[in-house]
Amino acid sequence: MEDQWQRAYDFAVEVARKAGEEIRKAGEREIRVMTKSSTVDLVTKTDERVEKIIIGSLTDEFGEGTHCFIGEESVAKGEPCILTDKPTWIIDPVDGTTNFVHGFPFVAVSIAFAVNKQLEFGVVYSCLEDKMYKARKGKGAFCNDQQIQVSDVKDIHKSIIISEHGTDRSPEKVTKTFSTMQKILCIPVHGLRGSGTAATNMCLVATGAVEAFFEIGIHCWDIAAGAVIVQEAGGILLDVDGGPLDLMSRRMVSANNETIAKRIIKEIEIFPVVRDDAPAEKQ
Amino acid sequence: MEDQWQRAYDFAVEVARKAGEEIRKAGEREIRVMTKSSTVDLVTKTDERVEKIIIGSLTDEFGEGTHCFIGEESVAKGEPCILTDKPTWIIDPVDGTTNFVHGFPFVAVSIAFAVNKQLEFGVVYSCLEDKMYKARKGKGAFCNDQQIQVSDVKDIHKSIIISEHGTDRSPEKVTKTFSTMQKILCIPVHGLRGSGTAATNMCLVATGAVEAFFEIGIHCWDIAAGAVIVQEAGGILLDVDGGPLDLMSRRMVSANNETIAKRIIKEIEIFPVVRDDAPAEKQ
Repeated sequence: MEDQWQRAYDFAVEVARKAGEEIRKAGEREIRVMTKSSTVDLVTKTDERVEKIIIGSLTDEFGEGTHCFIGEESVAKGEPCILTDKPTWIIDPVDGTTNFVHGFPFVAVSIAFAVNKQLEFGVVYSCLEDKMYKARKGKGAFCNDQQIQVSDVKDIHKSIIISEHGTDRSPEKVTKTFSTMQKILCIPVHGLRGSGTAATNMCLVATGAVEAFFEIGIHCWDIAAGAVIVQEAGGILLDVDGGPLDLMSRRMVSANNETIAKRIIKEIEIFPVVRDDAPAEKQ
Repeated sequence: MEDQWQRAYDFAVEVARKAGEEIRKAGEREIRVMTKSSTVDLVTKTDERVEKIIIGSLTDEFGEGTHCFIGEESVAKGEPCILTDKPTWIIDPVDGTTNFVHGFPFVAVSIAFAVNKQLEFGVVYSCLEDKMYKARKGKGAFCNDQQIQVSDVKDIHKSIIISEHGTDRSPEKVTKTFSTMQKILCIPVHGLRGSGTAATNMCLVATGAVEAFFEIGIHCWDIAAGAVIVQEAGGILLDVDGGPLDLMSRRMVSANNETIAKRIIKEIEIFPVVRDDAPAEKQ
């Protein structure tokens, strides 16, 4: 029984690579010749096409109706975003759509798999860097087949922290996010960074390039695969209030260890967000 | 006469690559086995060694005493930082030392060359990405031998802007920098990013991945090479007050065009910094 999801794991890596190649080609083919005003269409088209490729490939491989899917594009079209006990794929076809449009070098495909509401494995393919991150529960985390691990820094003053401003520009969110970042910078830490994609940010935690990444406003498909990768690289995942991570809460701290995570959490100014699994009328 | 500096330009590319390989090796060899508390030594040692390699190679090639050097490490040791009419190399051996220590994927070698106080060419080797950026006055800008150009975005709302927090944590600097970033985010723009190295940030402007990069507190060796690259990619360089760029002023806006640059400048809260060429007692 132990290896019952190995085939799914291996297949997810293949699918992520195929999806990443599609994204790379779409960027090369279309971004050079288009005006930036048409980029919203490009994003939607690419997002939709890549999600169809991923879900289509997985359905072909594992049979219609046997697995559930939570995908960014499907949810945007009104599909439910509820995690049940069934085998469920959680998919972000293009994480970092703003980066994608601009050619900023961090764009990722994120594919995670959960059974009985537990994440079994995660795959993040940072397709412009050609870095394939993957992790399966209990089996370690890898980047291009080299095992990775989080940084051993315990002193917050020697850390780099990542966060993002996201796309929501509501005054409360912006003010609290900037205030949190300023307080963290002045702990002081070595620096703040932002790659523009949550999935890649989590992989940067997993490789030890940064000590922590936190954000309020991310979605389950942004972080599900990265969550397994961080954990298998020896890191920790928490809610921004210090409790256990709730994948649907849209709030997360991922860090190399509890000391760093808790120190960051002390500075985070929380603002309300609607849960991913909230009934549609609340969204 | 037109091509009199071609040999120097070609040689600078070779030297930058050699220096970048040295940095990559130093990272692989030492960072894995060291505790983070000893990283300050690693940075100093690597900075010094790489600057010696660069200056040594250039002196061997062009003869002792014929060229001047402004290098981050030499200046730190008390050498003057004055740009004269003589042929002068302006060198940052390791731009992004914090990234280097952490293995964050942006670390660059920056080599520029000026004659009669005019920049003739610039080379930035982003050594962990293996991207060689170069530009010679009037000859275009290149990344790995592919010609690059800035983004054609004129609408600030469709832009990505880069800035950095730097290493200075004085309250005035931190407060004004955060306030500026918050105002820019809320114009609104597509996003804010930060790679942690000024040289790479300028190359991201030159490739069109972002529309602008501004910073107060950078040094001439961080931006001299990038300045040629941005300009030859069709971009623009200004002081943060809208005047012409002064390489020694430690203030810069680099952008894809004047419209974007001027819009950013409207939001920048200026704070005082000591010029690179100020007499030593003022530093």
